[in-house]
Amino acid sequence: MLPLPSRFLSSLLLRLNGRMLLVDCGEGTQITMRELGWGFVNLDFILITHFHADHVAGLPGLLLSLSNYGRTQEVTLVGPVGLGQVVNSLKVIAPELGFSLKFIEFSTEDKYAAEIMLGEFRVSALPLSHSLPCLGYSISIPRKGKFDPRKAIALNIPIEYWKILQEGKSFLCYKPEMVLGPPRKGLKVSYITDTLPIDTIPDFVFGSDLFICEGMYGDEEYKEKGETNFHMTFADAAKLAVAAEVEQLWLTHFSPALTAPENYLERTKEIFDNTVVGHDRMTKTLKFVD
Amino acid sequence: MLPLPSRFLSSLLLRLNGRMLLVDCGEGTQITMRELGWGFVNLDFILITHFHADHVAGLPGLLLSLSNYGRTQEVTLVGPVGLGQVVNSLKVIAPELGFSLKFIEFSTEDKYAAEIMLGEFRVSALPLSHSLPCLGYSISIPRKGKFDPRKAIALNIPIEYWKILQEGKSFLCYKPEMVLGPPRKGLKVSYITDTLPIDTIPDFVFGSDLFICEGMYGDEEYKEKGETNFHMTFADAAKLAVAAEVEQLWLTHFSPALTAPENYLERTKEIFDNTVVGHDRMTKTLKFVD
Repeated sequence: MLPLPSRFLSSLLLRLNGRMLLVDCGEGTQITMRELGWGFVNLDFILITHFHADHVAGLPGLLLSLSNYGRTQEVTLVGPVGLGQVVNSLKVIAPELGFSLKFIEFSTEDKYAAEIMLGEFRVSALPLSHSLPCLGYSISIPRKGKFDPRKAIALNIPIEYWKILQEGKSFLCYKPEMVLGPPRKGLKVSYITDTLPIDTIPDFVFGSDLFICEGMYGDEEYKEKGETNFHMTFADAAKLAVAAEVEQLWLTHFSPALTAPENYLERTKEIFDNTVVGHDRMTKTLKFVD
Repeated sequence: MLPLPSRFLSSLLLRLNGRMLLVDCGEGTQITMRELGWGFVNLDFILITHFHADHVAGLPGLLLSLSNYGRTQEVTLVGPVGLGQVVNSLKVIAPELGFSLKFIEFSTEDKYAAEIMLGEFRVSALPLSHSLPCLGYSISIPRKGKFDPRKAIALNIPIEYWKILQEGKSFLCYKPEMVLGPPRKGLKVSYITDTLPIDTIPDFVFGSDLFICEGMYGDEEYKEKGETNFHMTFADAAKLAVAAEVEQLWLTHFSPALTAPENYLERTKEIFDNTVVGHDRMTKTLKFVD
């Protein structure tokens, strides 16, 4: 909620084949992006969980920078209903951008997830339980089945056209499923913050390679406070990780009063072993597993 | 305009007898304030030069933090006409603050400075010449005349009441001017950014102990570009410093393309010797001179 000198506000940047997707944009996000050095202009998608300043205050500055860096291509923003109104209010200090904005607003009225393809990212949004409308996100990278050259040979497909089918595209009378096996396990990253540990979360984040989850409080003594503030403890997050059979859990969004989150790591690992305490500019490369 | 990893956006924080006044609030200002460690809740006044994101995007986050740190006292904001509208738009992401906001808006229609007392700070605002309405600020700390004990003795004022008169307050039939000499030289800090070097500036910043001025471009080759963009070169700033007979000049607000501003320092010192190239979190203590 408060940016600290060595703890900027929570935000997640995903990069796939050079294109980028950002989740949340607290104050200072663009400063971190500069330090990261992945560039700016290829940022195509921005997902916002909710409209508290600590998750969105960096947006007008970031959009202005995108424009100053020369972006002209439309940027798609996704968030709860009201997104367009909020962003247009914030744009009062960045009125002239070199690109247009597209808003996709999801209702948080019911408890079911919505799904949408954004470029190569498959994005699901789940209504959460916070003091105002809030969405959790799962971003998946689907993976096509394995190419079987024997099938291609049996079908007499000239070798120079194999690549088209391998990329999942049809060609003349040939369809990719003729030469590809069943879809393989892709990649999945989930981002859940500012919510109670509601029972729709495990299904939603199930099987994530990386599950990034808020841990507002380290000490279970704050469990009750978390319930009042619509926030979670480390144990809450770890229990979700167990139920969802995720590969790894990153804890983030610590209370400013929680000065040494690593003090609670050992206890949390007793619930879910592959737990990591998040820190600024933490990065990870996820690869398809064969 | 763009925050760089080691170069946050320009902002000035003044502290006097524990109370604080901020000039401009670009994205990340509250992060720097945390690093500085002067606290938050005593921030009484915020002056905004103009409504470009790089000078104001940090405002909603800062106001929210002030509220979270427990401030309940009104905060006064000063800026060009339209300030209230801009701040209320930005407040869409920080709707509930624990304190009220007071807006003081200055017209930028004419070329004359306006003056106002904010607590112990005497604030003057000068309309500048930028691509949108913009104000420069001079903040002065007036200093009372020297106390003359001989006058107090001659007037038979009991010694236990001297302090009241020394503080500039009247007491019974006694007035401070009866025992104080003429007002002495106070302190003056001026902040001029985002403008052409217009001819009203030297008078306005005259005699500043500290003159903080934009130097968008180091190389005089960019003089023409500066005129198009309503910005100044180092030489422009140094010439203003000479004309205004200031004590010291701090250069700030460098173009992102100006990666090594110190390369142009020597040449600038030939115009105005006491020139300093600004850097993040630079601080200076100014004291009354006897």
